[in-house]
Amino acid sequence: MVRTATTLDVRPNRPLILLSNDDGVDANGLAALAAALQGLGTIAVVAPVQEQSAVGHAITVHNPMRAHPWAFEGPDGPIWARAVTGTPADCVKLAAQKLLPRKPDLVVSGINHGPNAAINVIYSGTVSAATEAAILGIPSFAISHCSWDSEVDFEAAGHYARLVAERILGHGLPTGVLLNVNVPDLAMEHIRGVEVTRQARARWEEEFEERRDPFNRPYYWLGGRFVNLDDGHDTDLHAIDRGYVSITPIHYDLTAYDHISRIEGWDWRLESSKPVTSEL
Amino acid sequence: MVRTATTLDVRPNRPLILLSNDDGVDANGLAALAAALQGLGTIAVVAPVQEQSAVGHAITVHNPMRAHPWAFEGPDGPIWARAVTGTPADCVKLAAQKLLPRKPDLVVSGINHGPNAAINVIYSGTVSAATEAAILGIPSFAISHCSWDSEVDFEAAGHYARLVAERILGHGLPTGVLLNVNVPDLAMEHIRGVEVTRQARARWEEEFEERRDPFNRPYYWLGGRFVNLDDGHDTDLHAIDRGYVSITPIHYDLTAYDHISRIEGWDWRLESSKPVTSEL
Repeated sequence: MVRTATTLDVRPNRPLILLSNDDGVDANGLAALAAALQGLGTIAVVAPVQEQSAVGHAITVHNPMRAHPWAFEGPDGPIWARAVTGTPADCVKLAAQKLLPRKPDLVVSGINHGPNAAINVIYSGTVSAATEAAILGIPSFAISHCSWDSEVDFEAAGHYARLVAERILGHGLPTGVLLNVNVPDLAMEHIRGVEVTRQARARWEEEFEERRDPFNRPYYWLGGRFVNLDDGHDTDLHAIDRGYVSITPIHYDLTAYDHISRIEGWDWRLESSKPVTSEL
Repeated sequence: MVRTATTLDVRPNRPLILLSNDDGVDANGLAALAAALQGLGTIAVVAPVQEQSAVGHAITVHNPMRAHPWAFEGPDGPIWARAVTGTPADCVKLAAQKLLPRKPDLVVSGINHGPNAAINVIYSGTVSAATEAAILGIPSFAISHCSWDSEVDFEAAGHYARLVAERILGHGLPTGVLLNVNVPDLAMEHIRGVEVTRQARARWEEEFEERRDPFNRPYYWLGGRFVNLDDGHDTDLHAIDRGYVSITPIHYDLTAYDHISRIEGWDWRLESSKPVTSEL
């Protein structure tokens, strides 16, 4: 029987490590993460009650949220856990500011089932949980396993999750910076090591399939394939493709600093705007 | 009677301008935007059927979407419009890749009811529609009016929307860069001009209010106040506070380049990871 943990060991000097994800509280990757980090500190789990993939950095502002006590079995017994009726970013906000007795020392999001590299970072619920932690001033990382296989083995990803957690607990992270970790779909002994990378330029070549419902009304379904547009040797995709774990430091200041002065040079006087004409 | 436009003028050399937002297809800010851009080209509207605030860069991957033909009245008559059962980013993807006869020349998202400056950029559905356009290689901007008042007058924001649209159509934008525009809540004559800015460092001091439902079960509601942590004179918040329209160039490469070499210097050998122990 899986039991619900009712207490949380928050002794001082013992790291409090919050786990979340976007695949939902019952996902195998989250259980694997909890097992991998065993012994590094006190583990607490606050994760969405339902899968929340591709939610980006959504938060819940117009509706209340529930936080259900949840039975979460770790290797050493039950782990304190809450299942939240919200997004990954909601989970971290609510955990850090309300549910936990103190701010966690580290937030880890994952282990995601499938990669979160290149442009996909922006769509990723997994990354958004870690980003929310960084916004709150808590060191964090997101970790993803580059396989869509439902029978995936999280062993290698677990070992690297532990390594990254140890390094962040040891070194800290600069304010506003988090790490985005992707582990290639290889057995432990075939992973060649770690590369610190940048986000590759890539895009989805998307196709919306138009289908007809039983009433002959159209509907659209997103499909497509992912295309790497970046032949750089320092990217996350290049590392993963060659069997390395990619670690990309990311931040949430979206300012394109290199382009400020150029855009400043445009004529911004309102009186130089063309008057409205109904034809060109 | 509001009519549904069935045709779209896509003559070559006439800019095709796609409008979207996160407040929903029937929002006043979207109507004001369509009116403000009148005559700059052919306007098409593809917006969420329902309000989608704070959705971040969410996209719909597990469900199909509908795109309902919609009655949208412009100053010169009905405007071609679709109301999509999806997020702002979905609207732009679906419009550019399926619904429109060709890729638009410009995507404008707004006019949002309320500011999208500083850290709020990351939560903003308004900005995500423009970001999605940039990902697809289409010049774009997001525009927000810094007022929550339901009776807001969008006149000034409309004039600046037109100015920014003209400048982007004239100059183009660097690949991967979009503009995030915030218009202060002032009458036209009190707006002091434009400043090209960076995203301010700021955060929400959040409080989750714990309430009890009629069955005495707890639920949580996000509240809080916004705090500017940045005393720089080149930020979006500083511009808006002083009565200027802020224009921040933003991008979607989240790599924290300045921190790559530091994190590369950490010991990333897996064998240097501490073995699992059940106690610290």
